Order: sequence, then structure tokens, then C-alpha cells
Amino acid sequence: MALSDLRGVERNEAGIEAALGILKQRFGERFQTGMAIRGQHAHTTTYIPTQAPDGVAFPESGEEVQEIVKVCAEHRVPVIAFGVGSSLEGHVNAPGGGISLDTSRMNRVLAVNAEDLDCTVEPGVTREDLNAYLRDTGLFFPIDPGANASLGGMAATRASGTNAVRYGTMRENVLALQAVMADGSMVTTARRAKKSSAGYDLTRLLIGSEGTLGIITSLTLKLYGIPQAISGGVCPFPSVETACQAVIATIQMGIPVARIELVNQLQMRALKNYSKLDYPESPCLFVEFHGSDAGVAEQAETFGEIAAEYGGGPFLWTSVAEERTKLWKARHDAYWASLTLRPGAKGLSTDVCVPISRLAECIAETEADIAEMGLIAPIVGHVGDGNFHTLVLMDVDSPEEIALAEKFVSRLNMRAIAMEGTCTGEHGIGQGKMGFLEHELGHGVDIMRTIKAALDPQNILNPGKILPAA
Amino acid sequence: MALSDLRGVERNEAGIEAALGILKQRFGERFQTGMAIRGQHAHTTTYIPTQAPDGVAFPESGEEVQEIVKVCAEHRVPVIAFGVGSSLEGHVNAPGGGISLDTSRMNRVLAVNAEDLDCTVEPGVTREDLNAYLRDTGLFFPIDPGANASLGGMAATRASGTNAVRYGTMRENVLALQAVMADGSMVTTARRAKKSSAGYDLTRLLIGSEGTLGIITSLTLKLYGIPQAISGGVCPFPSVETACQAVIATIQMGIPVARIELVNQLQMRALKNYSKLDYPESPCLFVEFHGSDAGVAEQAETFGEIAAEYGGGPFLWTSVAEERTKLWKARHDAYWASLTLRPGAKGLSTDVCVPISRLAECIAETEADIAEMGLIAPIVGHVGDGNFHTLVLMDVDSPEEIALAEKFVSRLNMRAIAMEGTCTGEHGIGQGKMGFLEHELGHGVDIMRTIKAALDPQNILNPGKILPAA
Repeated sequence: MALSDLRGVERNEAGIEAALGILKQRFGERFQTGMAIRGQHAHTTTYIPTQAPDGVAFPESGEEVQEIVKVCAEHRVPVIAFGVGSSLEGHVNAPGGGISLDTSRMNRVLAVNAEDLDCTVEPGVTREDLNAYLRDTGLFFPIDPGANASLGGMAATRASGTNAVRYGTMRENVLALQAVMADGSMVTTARRAKKSSAGYDLTRLLIGSEGTLGIITSLTLKLYGIPQAISGGVCPFPSVETACQAVIATIQMGIPVARIELVNQLQMRALKNYSKLDYPESPCLFVEFHGSDAGVAEQAETFGEIAAEYGGGPFLWTSVAEERTKLWKARHDAYWASLTLRPGAKGLSTDVCVPISRLAECIAETEADIAEMGLIAPIVGHVGDGNFHTLVLMDVDSPEEIALAEKFVSRLNMRAIAMEGTCTGEHGIGQGKMGFLEHELGHGVDIMRTIKAALDPQNILNPGKILPAA
Repeated sequence: MALSDLRGVERNEAGIEAALGILKQRFGERFQTGMAIRGQHAHTTTYIPTQAPDGVAFPESGEEVQEIVKVCAEHRVPVIAFGVGSSLEGHVNAPGGGISLDTSRMNRVLAVNAEDLDCTVEPGVTREDLNAYLRDTGLFFPIDPGANASLGGMAATRASGTNAVRYGTMRENVLALQAVMADGSMVTTARRAKKSSAGYDLTRLLIGSEGTLGIITSLTLKLYGIPQAISGGVCPFPSVETACQAVIATIQMGIPVARIELVNQLQMRALKNYSKLDYPESPCLFVEFHGSDAGVAEQAETFGEIAAEYGGGPFLWTSVAEERTKLWKARHDAYWASLTLRPGAKGLSTDVCVPISRLAECIAETEADIAEMGLIAPIVGHVGDGNFHTLVLMDVDSPEEIALAEKFVSRLNMRAIAMEGTCTGEHGIGQGKMGFLEHELGHGVDIMRTIKAALDPQNILNPGKILPAA
């Protein structure tokens, strides 16, 4: 399980010392070695203990990233790319020390091609920054993992979120990347065409590689026209199972639902208390439709009929922006509302994803496990994709509670894998889920190791992540 | 250019002889060495000269594929996966001889999971076979490259076609693959969950790798509900440019067009003559919409209004299946109609893809080039993606004509690349486009070579394809 799998990466003290000297001289104030800043660059929204880097560099261009990687390559020192630190599985820890490469100063939107529905950005641009920048164009970038993550980090972890059911994940929404490889060379993975059959898919190879194969220095992203109309609402169901059946029917009907989120009973209780809204205290689906005025109304009505067939309802929905925002507020507040279930506790957020036909069963078994283990752990899910999250509320200073939470996560991951699913739908492997990757993909992990060894023979790019020791 | 880049792959005579003996003994009648059958397995729908393999194996399972690859690995003999032979760029040629691995007996649908909208098939199942199999389920697999290609071959070349604008390409529609690697080991690239952030994207690495990294032995594919209603029609435009502007506006509006095909003036002339239908002799868009009854009517009406704004029309459309089929007949007959433009000639089919904002310019320059070079070469395009095809009609027995066609293709590829596009949107690199890959991706090709060398150190999987000599 997670903590016990934190691999030691041997420290190369002499190399680190040499690299620190060179980078300090070259980057001056843009290279920091203070304890606080180093700690901030390792400690993210995770319970995994902090393993700080030895220094933090703030490059301002792809060329500067190349310089840093070349210094680290010459001295065999780890380089760990850092976006905003919202990752959840220890992705930015530095188990062998080394340099954190903070992309926050690489935050320019380089081009917006409205006719082509694409844009090119530096990796430190966050998704909210990008959408603010696009506001006057009538376009938007849909992927929404919750946190205001950097787009480079979102690509590196193959992030997705609530509207992946309609718009896909980062995998489907990156047209091309520019990245610095382990030898300091710069590669452009693809051109700006919507599709291509020209050679190996280097774009997708880097997406989800968590900074272990290359450091992303620019991204060309797909954009979408802001829909003419949006309708959305909330629909209670007698059970998780009936809610899941309604989701399956909705998707099979071909209704192009933009978001369809399951909130379980415990989470609804937390939301009611937190939001002071008159929600029912039973499992609910929060749904949203994008399209023409007539289209979104038709979709909402059809969904309401499907929900009723499965005993759900009443389905309260609206196309009026303010009312929709109010209806959806609860879903957006889920994280903060959850914390009120156990004041003072912190949350361990974990995610799995299973074929949608197994979703109800997987959630039911997980709820039973939560009850049996005496945990407080509400569930929310991007159920159109079969993806759900559990937030285990725990005292992170209690080794017993951490051990129990890890046992729960382990059982959850193995349950998802046994149901033909994955141990992570969108959070990534990092350090936290390394122990499950071979259970999930077997010999595939050997292929990954072969690729890693070929492209980063010195193992300097984010070492000790994704790939468990062979 | 193409022919001059056909790389010699050194023949390993002793190894080939040994492998032939072993495979003949093991597979009996399912291993063929007759000249005719060997020639059929190299000669595909291309003008590139045939380079026949030394034998053709017909495995019936993944385990048998492993056996064949292990024999070839032991004796360092090329293995070339073969689907139905509809590829266009010499993908199945055997420049260093070796074994053609014909997947036609691996043609079982292994599972259909209707609730999950997915299925698992063997690689020799063709897309028409699959859709026939699915007929009673209300589901379909949308990717349509024109030919009745095998699904293994479609994944291997990252195929797409007319409705990629709505449903994506093979890249977006394969959930997982099982493949035999160069050492004969079997890998499963992913599980059946709709999305995953678990490690490197081996699925996408194999898709488009044209059999050079692994041989696909099963595919898990996304399926879709057959739409409640389909509307479609034909709309003439005064010029290619106005047609392209209408396409851009349609997509920016967020109209979920399922197909949007450009047919240029010369192609329309051929179609009129061939189909005896009363089409206008000007550039046309053929469009199709999928959705609810009300939805497809609304979409067709909105598209008609957009077309009119750009001087197009009248837009003749219908939701009645027979009438729609008749309107679309011309588009489906394009290949055969084209051949009537020069009786006795054969067609060299080539494709490029550019950002849609450059599409009109790219087609205009290409039409001018065709006129200047005195070629007969109609154009059709999957213009929603910026992808178009040119069919150069030529006498394949004339070296001068071949040289001229190659010059044209070279100029077309370099033009697309100069416009931030790709030398192939959906046909792949094979042998025919190797000369352009470095122009398009530069150092990216070195990364591809590193991956190829790591995963296939003996270079036995489809050698002499995709990667130009370093």
C-alpha cells in the first residue's frame, strides 16, 4: 500500500551540490533554496509525507528549462516539474532530492486560433487563467479537474473532471506538446492539425507520464464554442443503484450530457448542512446539458423521463444561469462540506474508475466497506465515465488512522481492478498508487520501464514515481 | 520522395530459411509460401512496387501469434501484420522479406458490453462485420475509413474517415489493446474503464505504430447508440473558399455535425457523369447530422442558414433514409466516379491535414498545382477536420507519370507541413511518406527511433516502415 511503497531514490550528493552552485549562479533570485519554499514545492494536497527538493528553479522560457535539465543531466540530479501543487498522489515529492522546476513564470497564452478552435499556452497557465483570457472570444477550454490546476500539470497527470463525459480528458484535448527531454533536447510532438497518422503518438505518450519522460514547455489545446444554452439540475434517487441505471440509460440514448455527477447519501447530508439548501437526503444526480435553447430543454426533459422510470425525481432543472448555479452549488462545495463531517480532520482523496455496468456494485461494496471499517468517507462521482472519488476524513497525525485509510484505499483499488477498472481514473499514480500498477497492467509495466530507461537512461526526470521497482 | 525512399532492409537468408521450415511444420496448411499468395500479401491499393514476404502465416489466436513472433525473434526474421490489405502507403510490403502474419482467421467478436458501450474483438474483424454483428443491439461502431478494413489494421494506422469530426478517430475509440511485442510477450495496454491515469498510454503508443512496435491481437472499442434520427443533404457553394468558411462557422457554432465532406468541382463533374444525378457542377458540401428528430431538423436548418450567409445553397436535405442515401450516393461513389475521368488509369490516393483556417488556401494552391502540372486529380475532403484527399489518375506503367505524381505529392506534403499541418491525416506513413516525417516532426523522429530500438532491438516488426534511416 501507498506509504510502504515510497521508494528511496539514492541521493547523488556531489551532483546535487554541483548543480545547486551552477543554477544559483545562473538564475540568481530565480533559484531558491530556502527551507520553506522547498517544502511548499513538495507538500501538496496529499497525506503523503513531504520529501523536499534541494532547490527550486523558476524558468521563464523553454530554453531556460533546457538549460536547467542539461545541468541536471550533466550532474545526474533529479528534476521534478511543478505546476501549482494540486496533485494528490505525491507527484512533486523529491525522494532523491534534486531540483523542483516551477513553471509558474511560464504563464503566457502564446496564441489563440479562433477559427481552428485551438490555442497554444505555456505550462504554467492555469485553466481558470485560460478561460478568463478567452472570455471575449466566445470560446472556452472545458476540462475542469476541480482545482485551478496548471495546464502543464493537467496534461502530465492526464487530468479530467466533471465534464469529461462530454468533452473527454486531457488525452483528447491536447493537439500537440513541446517538451524538454532528459538530455535537454526539445521536442515538438505533433503539429496543429486536428488529426494525424504521422508516426508514433508522442503527444499521448507524454500525457499522463507525470514528468517522468519529459518536461512540458508548451501545449496546444482544443477549444470549444461556449454553448448557446446550458440547462442543469438535481435529481434524487432511491438508491445509488437506480441512479447508476439512469446514467446508463441516458448515455445509451445518446443524450450528449455535459456533466452527470453522483453524490451519495452521506455526501448529500454534508451538503445540506453546509449549503443550507433544501436538498433531499438521498443519492442525487447533478446533471448539465450544453446545446441550443431547444436542445438543452429537450435533453433535460428526456433525462427527467428516464429518471422517473428508475424511481428518481422530482428532477428540478433550469436554463437560467443563476438558478442553475444555485442548484449546482452543493456539488461545487462538496470538498468543503465534507470536512464538516469531522471537524479538524483532513481528507485523503482517492479515485478509481470502472466500467459503468459495474459502478453501482463497486460503490455499494465501497459503502459497505466504509461502514464496516468505521470510516467517514463521502463519495462523489463523475459517473458518466464510471469514475468516483472517496474522501476519507482522518487524523493525519494518527498512524493507526493512516494505516486504516491505506487499507481502505488498497481494498478499493483492488476492487476496481477486479471489476476490469483502473486504480486511478484521473489522479495519476505518483507515489501513492505505485503499488497497484502491476496488479492492473502486469507486463505492461515492464514495457513502461523499457520506455523510461530508453528515454531517461540516468533516471533524472521525476524519479521514484509511477513505476514500482522491478 | 516516396519511391526513392524505399529503404532496403537486409535479408537474413539463413534466418528466413530456418523460420520457414519451423513455421511450415508447425502450421501446415496455415502457412503458405506460394508466389501468388505472397504477392497478394504485399500488393495493396498503392502504386508502390510489391515487395513480397517469404511466407504467409494464418494464426487463429493470440497464442499462435506469440508462437510465430517467437520463432521470428529467435531467427531475426521480419514479421509484418496483415489485415485486409487496404492500406495505401506500402504498409504491408516486406522490403527485407520475412513472414506476413495474416489476421483474417482471428475474426471473432469476443464480447459486447451493451451497458458499457464497448466491445472486444479480434484484429481480423472488419468494421462492416462488426456493425453487422451489432445490428440487433441498437449500437454501432462509427469509424469509417471507406474501405471495409480490419479493425486491427485501422488501429495500427490510426485510421479515421468521414465521421471523425463527430466521433473521433481510432485514437479516441480504442479503450484497450492486447498485443504481442517483439520478444513474443503478450501485453494488455489498459483495462475496460472509460478513462484512466494509470501510467504511460501504451494504447495510444501502439495505435498508429503500423505494426512496428507490436502486433495487435485484440481490441476493446467504444460503441455508440444508433442515433434516433439522421438528417443529411448536399449544399453547393460558389467556391472552395466559401464552403470552407461555412464549415468553420458551423463548427464554431457548436453544431455537432456527424459528417461534413467537401467535394471539389472536378470531383463533382465526375460524380454527375457517373451517378447520372442532377448535382450542380460546383464545389459541394455533403453533410449529415445525428440526434433526436427535433435535433437533427434544427441542426440542418441552422446549417442551411450558415451556408446561405456564405453564398451557398440551396441546401437540399432530408431525414428520410432512402432519400438521404440517394443524396449521399455521389459521395460514396467518389472513387469509382474519379476513375472515369481517365479510363484505364489507376489512382494514387494521398492525404494531408491542415488547421481548418488554412484549408481553403491549401486546397486552392493544390488545385493550381494540379492545373499547372497537367494532372487529373479530383479532391474530396473530411473538411471538418481539415483533412483532404487527392486521387492522382496516372498510368502506373509510365515512369514519367509516376515521377510527376511523386513530385506533386511531395509538393502537397510540404505545403501542408508549411501550413502547420501533417503529411498524413489518416493514411499513415508506411513507406510512401517516410521522406516527410522529419520535415514534419524533426527531433521527434529521433525519439521515435529510440522507442523503436528499445522495444524492438532486432528490428523485426515491420522493418523499413515509418522511420527514415537516421
